[in-house]
Amino acid sequence: MRIGIYGYGNLGKGVENAIKQNPDMELVAVFTRRNPETLKIKTEGVRVCSIYDILQFKNKIDVMIICGGSATDLPEMTPDLAKNFNVLDSFDNHANIPWHFAKVDAVAKKYGNTALISSGWDPGMFSINRLYASCILPDGNDYTFWGKGVSQGHSDAIRRIHGVKDARQYTIPKDEALDAVRSGINPELTARDKHLRECFVVAEEGADTDVIRETIINMPNYFEPYDTIVHFITEEEMARDHSQLPHGGFVIRTGKTTDEHKHIIEYSLKLDSNPEFTANVLVAYARALYKMNMRGDIGCKTVFDVAPADLSPLSAEELRKNLL
Amino acid sequence: MRIGIYGYGNLGKGVENAIKQNPDMELVAVFTRRNPETLKIKTEGVRVCSIYDILQFKNKIDVMIICGGSATDLPEMTPDLAKNFNVLDSFDNHANIPWHFAKVDAVAKKYGNTALISSGWDPGMFSINRLYASCILPDGNDYTFWGKGVSQGHSDAIRRIHGVKDARQYTIPKDEALDAVRSGINPELTARDKHLRECFVVAEEGADTDVIRETIINMPNYFEPYDTIVHFITEEEMARDHSQLPHGGFVIRTGKTTDEHKHIIEYSLKLDSNPEFTANVLVAYARALYKMNMRGDIGCKTVFDVAPADLSPLSAEELRKNLL
Repeated sequence: MRIGIYGYGNLGKGVENAIKQNPDMELVAVFTRRNPETLKIKTEGVRVCSIYDILQFKNKIDVMIICGGSATDLPEMTPDLAKNFNVLDSFDNHANIPWHFAKVDAVAKKYGNTALISSGWDPGMFSINRLYASCILPDGNDYTFWGKGVSQGHSDAIRRIHGVKDARQYTIPKDEALDAVRSGINPELTARDKHLRECFVVAEEGADTDVIRETIINMPNYFEPYDTIVHFITEEEMARDHSQLPHGGFVIRTGKTTDEHKHIIEYSLKLDSNPEFTANVLVAYARALYKMNMRGDIGCKTVFDVAPADLSPLSAEELRKNLL
Repeated sequence: MRIGIYGYGNLGKGVENAIKQNPDMELVAVFTRRNPETLKIKTEGVRVCSIYDILQFKNKIDVMIICGGSATDLPEMTPDLAKNFNVLDSFDNHANIPWHFAKVDAVAKKYGNTALISSGWDPGMFSINRLYASCILPDGNDYTFWGKGVSQGHSDAIRRIHGVKDARQYTIPKDEALDAVRSGINPELTARDKHLRECFVVAEEGADTDVIRETIINMPNYFEPYDTIVHFITEEEMARDHSQLPHGGFVIRTGKTTDEHKHIIEYSLKLDSNPEFTANVLVAYARALYKMNMRGDIGCKTVFDVAPADLSPLSAEELRKNLL
């Protein structure tokens, strides 16, 4: 399976790593908006190309993994690349998924390619677990908790405040809320009940930290609906203690089959590196996408449309014998 | 969707319940080897029929859910019924799955029906989670723990001992082993390291409990490889404290994306009733089986072959909008 990587940030680097863990895959080229000569990648012998040369690779790449941002990159890139390639992205703006899907689906169908959007872990593995659990326990409730982990969006929101030099925000699920959910009492939980937000901020010299703190904790949508803790730290502390991008979370469904019998289904992730784990999910779905395309299954898909067996390099016989 | 239940033990009763939780499904008939007139079911207006009258229901039932035992029932029933119906079972003898699959697949293909074997939670949801996790973290290890829950096979093994009137065996995962796995150190664990076996036994009057205890803890395969605790209790205590069939367990995969970054994927179930939960899984897969059959996808399938979306009563659009 011949893979292309479109975009070489944290996610693209993670995909490059993940391909090395999968012997049935080969990285053909990395595409960048930057000057390709300035970009040094980790895999020996693989070309770095400008995105403007990408059509030279038509029919030489089985799946193009698009490693752009959901805000402005992917809404343009994924439909555009779907004209010439089978494409895979990690579009994670939940509210805009139907809109993004429709655009990609139309192009992929028109040009006879297969696309898969919104892969990763949420959307992605968490979505699948919400779906399985809700089908098994129709009489139930589910709860998704995120963290402990770095929220890039919340970190960026803090960085935009006047007087802030750098910031890192951790989303932390509250143990009391997790325990209440697991008890099966189906609690009604507000945003504040479920998650705590802990912020580490480097202030500009002379900035008023009280003003910064107040600005953060009162920021609508981002922080106001939550309990928020703000710590001011030095640049050295930031570099030393907060350079990683851990994340994770929990999808829990509780439900009953009869009035006497309750059940709890719980799926959780604890990730040292959010982009690297996301990349590994993408690469597994690249395999499925390739198989679906080989079977003539064109148009846009999501993780809901992919049978688990298609993610695996093993044959159906091996899977039944060893994993069922 | 018109469902038939073949066999009315704990599992069949669970399926009857589960159908009530799914408004797109209708129970058409329950089939029994017993005299149908002696069998009282919970759903008003549904026929109870002898298995010998089943051919009258050909083309009147979309999916037949076969609720028999894996040892002797299912190896005969599933291939036989696959001649005339789309069939679904919970065959759970892992070692014999390839053999059972081949038999059912041959019949289903010959007669143009769709079959799905080995649904439930292990095999079933646990298998799916082993598969997803191994595809996402190829450089890793996975561990399955069962319990705390009643093992019917181990309970039966104790009941066969001379002087034993009744018995219930709980399989209990050891916390130290779970903690070691979650730490990501990839421990090598023996059977004894992973699970404890706790037995509650009612002895016949005058039986030598020391002999019974020794016979249990030294029983090859069943108890000898484990730490086993034996309690002798009264019939009243057995009826009062051990009449339920709880179960559950954990599928944990730990792996790394790079030398610096480890990840933990964990799926767990905590079930008040093993047969009722299994029944709910079967009914969700009955929906998928029906959809696959409608698309002309015949032959034998397993949970690995079923895309998550097929389990749901919601449309693809609704799923993308609400669950992705």
